[in-house]
Amino acid sequence: MKFARVSNGYGYATARIQGGVAYPCEDWRTGDPARDSFVPPTLDPASAQNAAAIPLSELSFLPPIGGSNKLICLGLNYRDHVSEVGNENVSPYPSLFTKFPDTMVGAGSPIVRPTVSDAFDYEGEIAIVIGKGGRHIRKSEALSHLFGFTILMDGSVRDYQGHSVTAGKCFYASGSVGPWIVTSDEIPDYRKLTLKTRLNGEEVQSSVVENMIYDIPTAIEYISRWTPLAPGDVISTGTPAGVGFARTPQLYIKPGDLVEVEVSSIGVLANTAVAEA
Amino acid sequence: MKFARVSNGYGYATARIQGGVAYPCEDWRTGDPARDSFVPPTLDPASAQNAAAIPLSELSFLPPIGGSNKLICLGLNYRDHVSEVGNENVSPYPSLFTKFPDTMVGAGSPIVRPTVSDAFDYEGEIAIVIGKGGRHIRKSEALSHLFGFTILMDGSVRDYQGHSVTAGKCFYASGSVGPWIVTSDEIPDYRKLTLKTRLNGEEVQSSVVENMIYDIPTAIEYISRWTPLAPGDVISTGTPAGVGFARTPQLYIKPGDLVEVEVSSIGVLANTAVAEA
Repeated sequence: MKFARVSNGYGYATARIQGGVAYPCEDWRTGDPARDSFVPPTLDPASAQNAAAIPLSELSFLPPIGGSNKLICLGLNYRDHVSEVGNENVSPYPSLFTKFPDTMVGAGSPIVRPTVSDAFDYEGEIAIVIGKGGRHIRKSEALSHLFGFTILMDGSVRDYQGHSVTAGKCFYASGSVGPWIVTSDEIPDYRKLTLKTRLNGEEVQSSVVENMIYDIPTAIEYISRWTPLAPGDVISTGTPAGVGFARTPQLYIKPGDLVEVEVSSIGVLANTAVAEA
Repeated sequence: MKFARVSNGYGYATARIQGGVAYPCEDWRTGDPARDSFVPPTLDPASAQNAAAIPLSELSFLPPIGGSNKLICLGLNYRDHVSEVGNENVSPYPSLFTKFPDTMVGAGSPIVRPTVSDAFDYEGEIAIVIGKGGRHIRKSEALSHLFGFTILMDGSVRDYQGHSVTAGKCFYASGSVGPWIVTSDEIPDYRKLTLKTRLNGEEVQSSVVENMIYDIPTAIEYISRWTPLAPGDVISTGTPAGVGFARTPQLYIKPGDLVEVEVSSIGVLANTAVAEA
């Protein structure tokens, strides 16, 4: 099944998505969704079966993250990306950072190129959403803690990232996640998931999950050693080679550019950049 | 005025603290306070004046942070600390990282020395709480955005911090904040605030705010360039020299140790360490 957080312009709700239609799983909520945690719904299809079907054309997608959901991202998790950024060795431990919920927008919403920097870069990623929380989750048990998989665009402001990773990775509305979460039962072998990033239709990144240095169970085991994971927490698994700042000449996102991240079995996360107002 | 988030064992509330007594400013809330944002109360004393007075001895302090409150910390913000960690130069930009709400406990609650590391270190800090939100806040306007000042113990797990700052700084219940927030109007010149950290009664850190490399208005201006600040967000301003890992021999927090951070005009934040269960 696919689930998304959707907005009808007046409120927002978690909905099951099927065939171009959304079936809300809960009453519409109001307020700021970035301040309201996303809670993965039950997988029982009956829970949404009597809901009114709403065409996706009448809705917009919100990021399935807010409130106290943790968004933890792996850096340097593909060898070709480690090389292109000039690192000679692979670290023995995952490199991690966090993003705030308001750093992220949903599929189809504008991503914002900040006023203070031109070095706005794309990073296409595959992300997992936790379904069952825990601490000290063992690698062998890790996959049973998954709710599903989604797509994440880890927008990165490279000059500020040089000041500190947090600054460069947390610009308001600089990244995106969605459009939906595909539940794990529909991804029989996640190691075969392929990822492609396109800038204005041109492919700039292409890889497959099995190229990751730290696989998903390893990441869950390592992260849950230091922080409890709760339902709705998101772990983004890093980006492969091809990012803009490692190119000659460098290739950055400008206002008007279309960034698309496509992951097999999930879909396409597409966002157009706007200049910060 | 002083405000704190307090628990009576059944629920929690924001309360005004005066003379050993708490006056709740709102109805008692239930649920997980780490998942519920702290919102600075109105400064109108009348709003709490009819509340029942509860002796502090019947309450415990919670950290004034939860839900979608952002907790952003400066690293390397005192020259003597920059030197002791082996950096030769001061960066031209603040070094920043984040902590999760569930990384923090309140005054008097146990801080947790993790099972996976012995390198659990103290960092005493002065933190500010935002009262009026904003983006692109100018240095000259920054102080008008303050709600008040509090004390923060930035517990740091040094080996994991070497893997990535996020891992070392976000261990569950490894840090503390409180006991209360003193509103800005009671701190006529924050640059004169002094900070002392004690481990088992022995002074291990001592400095004054005016020794900071990036002062509070500069930090607010810089951070709000990339993320909107909202009421209740916390910025911790970094630690001076004297941390445990830079000593010979190294001095780490063991279960049973008492860590106290004292800030003039605010009070003492005291926590005893326990071993992770």
